[in-house]
Amino acid sequence: MATAPSQRARVRRAPARADYERATIDAILDEGLVAHLGFEVDGQPYVIPTLHARVGDTVYIHGSSASRMIRTLTACAPACLTVTLIDAMVLARSAFHHSMNYRSVVVLGQARAVADPDELLVALQAFTDKLVPGRWDEVRRPSSKELKATRALAMTLDEASAKARTGPPVDDEEDYALDVWAGVIPLGLAAGAPVADPKLAAGIEPSEVVTRWRPGGR
Amino acid sequence: MATAPSQRARVRRAPARADYERATIDAILDEGLVAHLGFEVDGQPYVIPTLHARVGDTVYIHGSSASRMIRTLTACAPACLTVTLIDAMVLARSAFHHSMNYRSVVVLGQARAVADPDELLVALQAFTDKLVPGRWDEVRRPSSKELKATRALAMTLDEASAKARTGPPVDDEEDYALDVWAGVIPLGLAAGAPVADPKLAAGIEPSEVVTRWRPGGR
Repeated sequence: MATAPSQRARVRRAPARADYERATIDAILDEGLVAHLGFEVDGQPYVIPTLHARVGDTVYIHGSSASRMIRTLTACAPACLTVTLIDAMVLARSAFHHSMNYRSVVVLGQARAVADPDELLVALQAFTDKLVPGRWDEVRRPSSKELKATRALAMTLDEASAKARTGPPVDDEEDYALDVWAGVIPLGLAAGAPVADPKLAAGIEPSEVVTRWRPGGR
Repeated sequence: MATAPSQRARVRRAPARADYERATIDAILDEGLVAHLGFEVDGQPYVIPTLHARVGDTVYIHGSSASRMIRTLTACAPACLTVTLIDAMVLARSAFHHSMNYRSVVVLGQARAVADPDELLVALQAFTDKLVPGRWDEVRRPSSKELKATRALAMTLDEASAKARTGPPVDDEEDYALDVWAGVIPLGLAAGAPVADPKLAAGIEPSEVVTRWRPGGR
């Protein structure tokens, strides 16, 4: 089992739930559709939801969601990117032991601005195919003007950790005799049927890339 | 329409998507099952997923997930609590205009430690009933020992803002003629059937409180 890549990346609370294997970290980053990016401006932390996509050892962060974020982070300020998947509600026999089953990844480090047009293109393809794998091949590719308007940040996975809770509730020994139902309610992101843009021209049907898509590849 | 409660709480990017109405803010906080809490330690931002529950003007944050978080934040350090709901993938005709429909709330301020046992009890009830409304009345209430072991933080909603993207993709005018399907794929958290704890005594069935629960009250 891999160990923590740095002292500050080590999971402190409930360390038995920690996992530093890249395969675990990658799977969570790849399944999560939204990341939460943390950074500081004038002594105040901000946490902003944003699209992300992993390419190898790099996580790209879509920059259109907050210009303040981009301004701050392109100055190589420290940042934290967190992706969380909700797997179940955990209903114990006691209020105290109620919990959630989840998987999360925390990436520490500095974010750099992606300036190279070729790398920007890689990031945009990754964002598009992250939403719906194969979508990039169906749509109009970015123009050079759009590439110039695209802001993306990159973080490496050098200081990343995963954490998860799984399984049934854990109650105090004497509570197992209580007449209270206990267990988990599985949770997951589900997709409805695609809804066409009202402006869609007649006769255009969604491709299999779109109709077959399911969250988490399920 | 309400205006931003402070300059720093004002939504900068895409301000037309911002909403400062408490009803909007409350609805998002109440539907979201997990919050992301941002804080700083030694110049490094951290973003930690955690349970939260709103009671009136206060958001309580469940403290068991990170002792470092609790240590830092009970010293009245600035914090940011963000809750994000994913509503749809937005598939445009161009890669550049792909997006997500979402609703999010960002709460800025300082977190105080909840020390009063009566308020801790309020917070624990809120966490429990937030997971499954009505669950508090079914389970064993916290003992005084458990209350002593409970860590909760509180933030007020004085500096909160909501932001949302809704509706179909917005493409460049000339792209509407492209032969590419465009629209949205609705997304939402869905629940599976309750799974009993393997240690559950024979003959105990889940109550209607449990079997009727759906994410977001749907």
